[in-house]
Amino acid sequence: MLFSVLHRCDETEARTGRIMTRHGPAETPAFMPVGTNATVKAMPPADLERLGASIVLGNTYHLYLRPGDDLIASAGGLHSFMSWPGPILTDSGGFQVFSLSSLRRVDDDGITFRSHIDGSEHRFTPERVMEIQRNLGADILMCLDQCPALPAGRDEMLRAIGRTTAWAERCRAAGTRSHQSLFGIVQGGTDVDLRLDHLRELTSLDLPGYALGGLSVGESKEDMYRVLREVAPHMPEDRPRYLMGVGSPDAIIEAVRRGVDMLDSVYPTRIARHGTVLTSYGSVPVRNAAYARDFRPLDERCFCHVCRNFSRAYLRHLIKAEELLAHYLTTYHNLHFLLQMMREIREAVHQGTFLSWREDFWHRFYRCAPPE
Amino acid sequence: MLFSVLHRCDETEARTGRIMTRHGPAETPAFMPVGTNATVKAMPPADLERLGASIVLGNTYHLYLRPGDDLIASAGGLHSFMSWPGPILTDSGGFQVFSLSSLRRVDDDGITFRSHIDGSEHRFTPERVMEIQRNLGADILMCLDQCPALPAGRDEMLRAIGRTTAWAERCRAAGTRSHQSLFGIVQGGTDVDLRLDHLRELTSLDLPGYALGGLSVGESKEDMYRVLREVAPHMPEDRPRYLMGVGSPDAIIEAVRRGVDMLDSVYPTRIARHGTVLTSYGSVPVRNAAYARDFRPLDERCFCHVCRNFSRAYLRHLIKAEELLAHYLTTYHNLHFLLQMMREIREAVHQGTFLSWREDFWHRFYRCAPPE
Repeated sequence: MLFSVLHRCDETEARTGRIMTRHGPAETPAFMPVGTNATVKAMPPADLERLGASIVLGNTYHLYLRPGDDLIASAGGLHSFMSWPGPILTDSGGFQVFSLSSLRRVDDDGITFRSHIDGSEHRFTPERVMEIQRNLGADILMCLDQCPALPAGRDEMLRAIGRTTAWAERCRAAGTRSHQSLFGIVQGGTDVDLRLDHLRELTSLDLPGYALGGLSVGESKEDMYRVLREVAPHMPEDRPRYLMGVGSPDAIIEAVRRGVDMLDSVYPTRIARHGTVLTSYGSVPVRNAAYARDFRPLDERCFCHVCRNFSRAYLRHLIKAEELLAHYLTTYHNLHFLLQMMREIREAVHQGTFLSWREDFWHRFYRCAPPE
Repeated sequence: MLFSVLHRCDETEARTGRIMTRHGPAETPAFMPVGTNATVKAMPPADLERLGASIVLGNTYHLYLRPGDDLIASAGGLHSFMSWPGPILTDSGGFQVFSLSSLRRVDDDGITFRSHIDGSEHRFTPERVMEIQRNLGADILMCLDQCPALPAGRDEMLRAIGRTTAWAERCRAAGTRSHQSLFGIVQGGTDVDLRLDHLRELTSLDLPGYALGGLSVGESKEDMYRVLREVAPHMPEDRPRYLMGVGSPDAIIEAVRRGVDMLDSVYPTRIARHGTVLTSYGSVPVRNAAYARDFRPLDERCFCHVCRNFSRAYLRHLIKAEELLAHYLTTYHNLHFLLQMMREIREAVHQGTFLSWREDFWHRFYRCAPPE
């Protein structure tokens, strides 16, 4: 994998860049739609291409349990299985084990857990997780990490950090396929000193990219912004910086401002399925009765396929009638909104206008000034 | 509306034709996908166009109850509301009142019923149903009819036929908008003499098209084929002949053989959502475990977008994981299959090879000879 920084913002840590993979390039800052079960929910891959998504995420935990990484390997890998020709990143499954499965037992060697699907018992070790990710065949793989639930005591946090470092070493030693790149995950909760210490430990492994894990898990926005401000700029300059699990417009913008290059979240697709759409003037809960006779497009400034063809009243009707097409149309629009926002961010950084673009966006979308 | 017969089969009653509406043409024999709630379930209208659907059906009963025909009129009519530029046919709501609603009271003037959505009481008369269909703005409207549940006594059937005729006269008198055409519906169950009598009564109204109602409602295939054989060829030659509620390949082919020009059914879209796909070699229940590692396309002879990009194993995985994309992909393929079958039928009638095409289809799809 090759990563190159293309432009730097003069006034912030924001930057644009390009990740080159065997499955093509991804322009950064990049928002990665989440395709948990080998599908971005409700979206045909041809539409993802049309929307300009350059890289999507798959969840190792889910794909390992169903349909199984061996089956996906038999299909020729995840790209072929889901018919997505572009770059893919798979997470390590660690976060899902801690958030979805029951009866976890963590020891220094790995994690034993029960499937959230059928209760069967499984074990993830760094070596096993790398084998699964080699089978899936994604372009970017993540190290197995331990993400303690917040608030966590200092001892618990230190133990999790120690394991995450040891597991990253074992993941690196286990190896990837030739086209794959392995990223490390920095933990440490909201404690900046722990974060910086862990970052130093991991950078000694000389991995091709680094992620911030354990954020956007319930801490305040202020705490997250503080960690981003104090930690992100210290991540290796010549490697992609990936903030895991972040996808609301405010958090994306503030993360990019601090030098983040990649982000992922189910946020735009999940709120879509719950009947809320992102527009130039903020979120619109189009499922509400207020929109029953609103014949305007979802977003009057938007030029996506949905906004050119359908009204809020029609979307609200589909949602009330529990029609499948509602999910497709709201998901399509929300992904268009975020991917278009990323294009605008890249262009603003390129043009040297990122701070004024950010100011405008906050005022229009959130009707307030951006945070300090 | 203009209807012209283009080609006639020498050996059967099959024929090709063209219906011209203000919203464009529909080549016949035409299969009409059903868009109950102003959407063909799971299908964006742009995909329907890509699939070559020329005319779709909307359900008056559903649209009247939700979102309401007045709301759809405010949106500029059903074409604009659902963003479907081609021809639309709306049924009269009569069949749905009898099959979906509770506490029906039928009298000579109309039908009082309760909504299946919220239990509220409503009344359909011929005049009201025409007002609703004018509001919806479809190109082809249907007369309000009474479809008795089978088996029905002769007196009950005669009463239903009498009402259907009287209501057809009142529908015609109530009038359509200038671009709309009103079709009559022939009832009479499986009794050929009653059917022919009713057909004679209705043809005296000189309507621009006629439908066979009350078939495919539980009677045997043999009974339906007998009615088609004895009745369809006597329907006015210069008007479209519409068989309501039929959509399985066998019944479509046998109906076309007897001279039917239009058909509609939820069959291909409903079995799709239940995980069964239509292929050149018969139905395939792709949700079954047998297909878990079957990396072939749904149909190896098919060239649709789904078959060119996805495997049975992938579809089976999406179905097991209850992923929304499964509905889109199986529905897309099944509609492609039936619409492609209709193109082949029209071409075979044109080329004079309909009977041998039919023989081939039956042997390949059903592994048996077609019925007498």
